[in-house]
Amino acid sequence: MSKAIRVWNEYRHEKTHKEVSDIYPDGLHEAIATYLREQPGLQVRTATLDEPQNGLPDSVLSETDVLIWWGHMAHADVAEETVDRLQKRVLEGMGLICLHSAHFSKIFRRLMGTTCNLKWREIGEKERIWVIEPGHPIAAGLGQYFELEHEEMYGERFDIPAPDTLVFVSWFAGGEIFRSGCCYYRGDGKVFYFRPGHETLPTYYDPNVRRAIANAVRWAAPVDGPKHTFGHHPQPIEDVKPWP
Amino acid sequence: MSKAIRVWNEYRHEKTHKEVSDIYPDGLHEAIATYLREQPGLQVRTATLDEPQNGLPDSVLSETDVLIWWGHMAHADVAEETVDRLQKRVLEGMGLICLHSAHFSKIFRRLMGTTCNLKWREIGEKERIWVIEPGHPIAAGLGQYFELEHEEMYGERFDIPAPDTLVFVSWFAGGEIFRSGCCYYRGDGKVFYFRPGHETLPTYYDPNVRRAIANAVRWAAPVDGPKHTFGHHPQPIEDVKPWP
Amino acid sequence: MSKAIRVWNEYRHEKTHKEVSDIYPDGLHEAIATYLREQPGLQVRTATLDEPQNGLPDSVLSETDVLIWWGHMAHADVAEETVDRLQKRVLEGMGLICLHSAHFSKIFRRLMGTTCNLKWREIGEKERIWVIEPGHPIAAGLGQYFELEHEEMYGERFDIPAPDTLVFVSWFAGGEIFRSGCCYYRGDGKVFYFRPGHETLPTYYDPNVRRAIANAVRWAAPVDGPKHTFGHHPQPIEDVKPWP
Amino acid sequence: MSKAIRVWNEYRHEKTHKEVSDIYPDGLHEAIATYLREQPGLQVRTATLDEPQNGLPDSVLSETDVLIWWGHMAHADVAEETVDRLQKRVLEGMGLICLHSAHFSKIFRRLMGTTCNLKWREIGEKERIWVIEPGHPIAAGLGQYFELEHEEMYGERFDIPAPDTLVFVSWFAGGEIFRSGCCYYRGDGKVFYFRPGHETLPTYYDPNVRRAIANAVRWAAPVDGPKHTFGHHPQPIEDVKPWP
Repeated sequence: MSKAIRVWNEYRHEKTHKEVSDIYPDGLHEAIATYLREQPGLQVRTATLDEPQNGLPDSVLSETDVLIWWGHMAHADVAEETVDRLQKRVLEGMGLICLHSAHFSKIFRRLMGTTCNLKWREIGEKERIWVIEPGHPIAAGLGQYFELEHEEMYGERFDIPAPDTLVFVSWFAGGEIFRSGCCYYRGDGKVFYFRPGHETLPTYYDPNVRRAIANAVRWAAPVDGPKHTFGHHPQPIEDVKPWP
Repeated sequence: MSKAIRVWNEYRHEKTHKEVSDIYPDGLHEAIATYLREQPGLQVRTATLDEPQNGLPDSVLSETDVLIWWGHMAHADVAEETVDRLQKRVLEGMGLICLHSAHFSKIFRRLMGTTCNLKWREIGEKERIWVIEPGHPIAAGLGQYFELEHEEMYGERFDIPAPDTLVFVSWFAGGEIFRSGCCYYRGDGKVFYFRPGHETLPTYYDPNVRRAIANAVRWAAPVDGPKHTFGHHPQPIEDVKPWP
Repeated sequence: MSKAIRVWNEYRHEKTHKEVSDIYPDGLHEAIATYLREQPGLQVRTATLDEPQNGLPDSVLSETDVLIWWGHMAHADVAEETVDRLQKRVLEGMGLICLHSAHFSKIFRRLMGTTCNLKWREIGEKERIWVIEPGHPIAAGLGQYFELEHEEMYGERFDIPAPDTLVFVSWFAGGEIFRSGCCYYRGDGKVFYFRPGHETLPTYYDPNVRRAIANAVRWAAPVDGPKHTFGHHPQPIEDVKPWP
Repeated sequence: MSKAIRVWNEYRHEKTHKEVSDIYPDGLHEAIATYLREQPGLQVRTATLDEPQNGLPDSVLSETDVLIWWGHMAHADVAEETVDRLQKRVLEGMGLICLHSAHFSKIFRRLMGTTCNLKWREIGEKERIWVIEPGHPIAAGLGQYFELEHEEMYGERFDIPAPDTLVFVSWFAGGEIFRSGCCYYRGDGKVFYFRPGHETLPTYYDPNVRRAIANAVRWAAPVDGPKHTFGHHPQPIEDVKPWP
């Protein structure tokens, strides 16, 4: 049974910054989607910010198993109404994978409840991503660590809730560390934050980054879990006399 | 060094429901505050919804170490602006203790990122609260469990993030269970959700409930932790040459 | 690619207690194995205590993806040497599912580091198992809760480390609650403790119990994660001058 | 009410390695104990491996609130019987702080259930310890990070259970990262693993290291939590008829 994946990109840098479009001529969503399309059992489409309803009408969301999110310069342009629907859909079971600068996306901050702030620096320093939880499915097929020769630095304190499972921690040449792969259960859904992916760098062509994203997609896919009932349940399951 | 505690109550039921004011003639905030005032090292004041700025201007928040929150029928009347300031203050280090129906308060839902929905039933059934993490300071002075002869039932699925530490789980006569004592680190602050306390019942006079709240106040108090810097840190700590 | 499952049973009660063999004439391992054999992608065998090397020579362990463990009256008869090899194999990636009275098995206690003690009572009372983390794969196909009309009671305090993910919590008619579905990452492996399954009751024919076990098998299966190197790494990855 | 602290040291390097005794002439336990003695509310004594019963007879353990442990070359010389008593006492509530090479101590491995293996390198490279959970009491009084100009490197994969709370993560000049401050609830007790402290380096004179240890002592001290009953509880709390 094929999983429906949607790769969302704000798709602005690519239109205005030649250094970005040189690397991602069809948008970085296509670089990610192209790789995922080669993986078995995934049906992959894309969506972008400037489409109607930010590319994510309910008709799309309701049939999406896992949504991948990349945004950076235009977080503010995502409609509150879109964020409301996204949050609702994640809590109903849709997986969400937030990449890199999506730490500051409205949907990630909404789901985390914290500022999601961090330190950053853009000098193209080396990042080494260490696997901390080797039995986790997101670590499948990876080595003890993998390196990105040039990346933007993100450093702690990363103002997030402690992840339910911490899979990756990054070392940066400039002296910082960062929790780079963070798994969360939220509602019936699952969220994965994955750090790498500055828009001026070919990070989304890196085979380890791609593998981690593909792994995360499978981990984040909905399970056929319980349908909850919430609210007033006046009738006890057991035989109990009302009081007084 | 005394901790500044503020017990906040929406204080509406007490004015309109005789069954509530019979039990809590000065408001349930006073029932809680009176007990806490007897504890060493706490300076305890109260605040209520209908005061200016919902009783919580910045001048109050900035000098509050731990805020206790009870709300039920008037969550919607808490100003968004108040919630913004509350969230900011928690993330800066203030402790927050959300009691009972505060599971649906704006500030708790904001900090959790989930619906915080649950099942409920009001037939005055028995609740038995089991201690799950006996080494946690919130369990100090308690037995293996304590009972509330009559309480409103709250049942799982409780739509919250898994707590960083789960201290209590409740058994209900009607057949449900509930995660009743939930600790969270959020930003530089700490949040404790504590289930008991329906307004028509004398729960806040119960010695175990009171002890748990007093324990939680001490646990949630700010520590003198690091002052973070966020944002652009163009200068690496280590000597790294910019690229390209 | 088929997963190699091994259902281990101490297989003593069935030989000596008619009430047990009446329910599980081929041993309770066969009741579990029979169901799992019907599931796609699983290759299921069994092993029992009184076979040579407790049925688990290295040749068996090395080709086992997930081991299911049921033991009760004969924990002490499992050789320390077997436990050493089991622990090693779990830490190398093998999944381990400990059922019911296996809370007191040597391997579970070894992996937990705690006493794994609990309360118990055998009056055949009702157990209601609530799903707490509905997005977890072990909850797939289940309802909000499922009931076992008659079970042995296990009650908190269950002296275990807090699970990495808590999936189930049980309600018992007699007044106790219990963390019934507990997921752990340990080494490169994964461990799931699942409470139900008293030997004198037909619990392992229950469709929900069976489904949970089958789900757990898939969750606990090894991933193709990193091969670690441990110990002395005299050569830094980065160019650093030794000191002094 | 004063807390009884016991600083345990295997105290071998100091007797045989001049480079160690030059730094810690009275043993590194004394360097730690001296600082702790200056802190209010702590009653601090020491114990060493070669004393009778490894310096930790039950009469000592039973009156110890928090035990600090440093060992390295002589882990094997700690009697199994001592480890049994230590484990029992931690599970009964005593705090345990394992320093540096105590990752390989029998008691730490016993309590973790894993190999506790790691990578190491001894070229005196720089370590920078980042605070990851700033609201935790162990972070009190520290900055965003602190540095140790020269330390032994410990690198991931650190084969431990994911800590209940991760407080520190280290950056090493040679390219590795490490979970350096790990909190665990185990039984009624609490365990803190703290990485720094190679015997040939003056790490235990560092004010940040000292502050972290003093903080950890207070965090790990026992709370007056519930006294459990385990085992057979034939009588249900609620009125339930035995079956069949």
